Amino acid sequence: MYELRTPVKVSEAVNRVMNHKKKGEKEFIELMEAGDRYLAEDIVADHPIPPFDRSPLDGFAVRSEDTENADSTHPVQLEVVETVGAGHVAKGPVKPGQAIRVMTGTVMPDNTDAIIMFELAKEFTQEDKTYIEIKRPFKAGDYVSKKGEETKQGEVVVRSGTKITAGVIAVLATFGYHRVPVAKKPVIGIYATGTELLEIDDNLQPGKIRNSNAYMIISQIRQAGGEPKYYGKLKDDFNLCYNAVTQALNEVDALITTGGVSVGDFDFLPEIYNRLGAEVLFNKIAMRPGSVTTVADKDGKLLFGLSGNPSACFVGFELYARPWIRSYLHSGKPYVETVKGKLTADFPKPNPFTRFIRSKVEFKEGKVFASPVGMDKSQVVTSLAYTDALVAVPGGSRGYKSGDEVDILLLTSEGSENPLKDPAKSRDEKL
Amino acid sequence: MYELRTPVKVSEAVNRVMNHKKKGEKEFIELMEAGDRYLAEDIVADHPIPPFDRSPLDGFAVRSEDTENADSTHPVQLEVVETVGAGHVAKGPVKPGQAIRVMTGTVMPDNTDAIIMFELAKEFTQEDKTYIEIKRPFKAGDYVSKKGEETKQGEVVVRSGTKITAGVIAVLATFGYHRVPVAKKPVIGIYATGTELLEIDDNLQPGKIRNSNAYMIISQIRQAGGEPKYYGKLKDDFNLCYNAVTQALNEVDALITTGGVSVGDFDFLPEIYNRLGAEVLFNKIAMRPGSVTTVADKDGKLLFGLSGNPSACFVGFELYARPWIRSYLHSGKPYVETVKGKLTADFPKPNPFTRFIRSKVEFKEGKVFASPVGMDKSQVVTSLAYTDALVAVPGGSRGYKSGDEVDILLLTSEGSENPLKDPAKSRDEKL
Repeated sequence: MYELRTPVKVSEAVNRVMNHKKKGEKEFIELMEAGDRYLAEDIVADHPIPPFDRSPLDGFAVRSEDTENADSTHPVQLEVVETVGAGHVAKGPVKPGQAIRVMTGTVMPDNTDAIIMFELAKEFTQEDKTYIEIKRPFKAGDYVSKKGEETKQGEVVVRSGTKITAGVIAVLATFGYHRVPVAKKPVIGIYATGTELLEIDDNLQPGKIRNSNAYMIISQIRQAGGEPKYYGKLKDDFNLCYNAVTQALNEVDALITTGGVSVGDFDFLPEIYNRLGAEVLFNKIAMRPGSVTTVADKDGKLLFGLSGNPSACFVGFELYARPWIRSYLHSGKPYVETVKGKLTADFPKPNPFTRFIRSKVEFKEGKVFASPVGMDKSQVVTSLAYTDALVAVPGGSRGYKSGDEVDILLLTSEGSENPLKDPAKSRDEKL
Repeated sequence: MYELRTPVKVSEAVNRVMNHKKKGEKEFIELMEAGDRYLAEDIVADHPIPPFDRSPLDGFAVRSEDTENADSTHPVQLEVVETVGAGHVAKGPVKPGQAIRVMTGTVMPDNTDAIIMFELAKEFTQEDKTYIEIKRPFKAGDYVSKKGEETKQGEVVVRSGTKITAGVIAVLATFGYHRVPVAKKPVIGIYATGTELLEIDDNLQPGKIRNSNAYMIISQIRQAGGEPKYYGKLKDDFNLCYNAVTQALNEVDALITTGGVSVGDFDFLPEIYNRLGAEVLFNKIAMRPGSVTTVADKDGKLLFGLSGNPSACFVGFELYARPWIRSYLHSGKPYVETVKGKLTADFPKPNPFTRFIRSKVEFKEGKVFASPVGMDKSQVVTSLAYTDALVAVPGGSRGYKSGDEVDILLLTSEGSENPLKDPAKSRDEKL
């Protein structure tokens, strides 16, 4: 009756999922809507930056040779023949003894090769003409932003797979990408299973709880960059569940179910994978919470069978579904980023399996710390509200003390190109 | 002609903006749409968690006293009288010598006080009845999740002002918040000024550049949690700009302009603030880039006059507009979070003013590092694509070396309750 499953290591489970990764197609969207999407092409400079020699400040464009002999006792006077704002071009070339008043961003007038900022030029008027007086020499190129000094034409300025932040949008706008090549979002279906689940606006009933996992997962999918498609909740009925899953698979790129993957009498997902003829990548992971997390592949579509326990469900998504979604989006950093840091509190619990402790990351005096948030049982939900990191402690340890170095998975970091590793052997075993 | 302005310190400028902060009204939205919004009320547990004594695993609910004398030589046998799935309630109370098979999450049947996991009970059938054999005693409470052990009814589980992450959504769903009290988003208008600006789908023309700031700011506003309202770009024409700003102020909670705040002949914003009778909070900050950043208040609406230089514009938004937006959203952590860390490269440039170097933050061996990204001139745009932090180096320094400790502003961190401080005096001055 009790089914024995062989647990795989966390890193092995992630690798098996990533062996089934897929790259989403490219689509073009408006720049205004491109925030938080992922680039599906390298972005190439269609022109140099600056596009022309220009003044980086408000000042006077001059011929440097005219200022050669200027000093405080023999100031040089130049006639200001024109004022040019950014976006305009000076009418004529500058002749010896002349200067042009230019604003920030103005293209350098012909024959000029230096900019003198307002503060260094004394302006005065004589017989209806305007002059500046200069008390020091300027060299050719002084204060001029040279064409192409920042970026050459044809240079790759942002790589494919980059998340589109505000800074990336500035670059896209600069190079005229009014329509942006991005990776299509994977459509991820969600079914919450379990007769115990109430709708969120239902009153509580004996033995039942409200369905929190589905809404949490919808939010996690969006955060990861996917497009959630919520199908609702399913009672513990095999045929109902089987038909629902089969149907949904036609409409999604991957399907997440919550609950029903353990060894209980009404945990139908294993039998559903079997009936579907899906390839089960693993059905037990050497981790807590979420050891029953199961992933299967049906004709190139992944079925993520997450635990019904809220925290196990949360962790299972971040470790296994998120990297898959990020690869679909062409991200070069699909994996959760792991950093070293110190625990700020004891974690006395011994761990037969690798344990992911819901934590909050902090930085103090240049160092990284993680503080466990609240209780650490897999069914605990409230601590999730404060979780932005997972502390990974290896299996086989006899607990950890405040100040011990641990692996910290940063959930709000953009990610890492390095595949997730299992945490190093425990201190106990090393001693 | 050249207007002398008195620069204020960065922290003073932030304080002046925050003295004009406002709290947005509360509104209710669907849970499904609540991601990334900010709570406008404390969230209170309307029931304990767990809501009832329950089994945290698949196993057998028993009366612990029945197992008192069990050991490997004298196993105890109990009759399994019922199987109950999660969401169902056992039919009758358990009598001496009986057990009930229960699934994860099932409410504890009457008279039972311990759970024996499948692995520790040998199940067998005799004369059409099912029994389990147990070879060790169990204590009252063994493996039972007690009602309220995680959260008591009436407890505040998430504070007002918290950003709604996936974890917060799980909590909201658990406590039946199908409509969520959130802070209204502030509507932030945007005008890009400057005759030099082309539309993003225009071909380049002599002396002109494409309008990248507006799109960048739209994205920054969204990231900060505000609702952008883009009005377009304005030529350098005083009356046009004055009327546009006056008009827009009627429709927004704050207005951001880019460009036109310096001392150039076509920098009309200072005169517009004057004509409007707006209170100018400051018009020069002891910082680079973005020293000309100006903020004014017109009848409780803030006018953020950001620089037209892309990087100065970016920095000005993060330092001054973002904390204002976050307070409007009731956030308890409106300020940009600053942490200590080490520079990974020399930054030889001397700084008359505090300088914010566009950087990328990294974590290595438990420590925080920041690497400057590309060139650091205020008009540089491409480096913004890789910026997720700003290194703040104090004014008066003679440059910094790789390995020096610096202040790092984490742009992707949720924020801090601590007001932004100016970076400490430079090493040079300390020596």
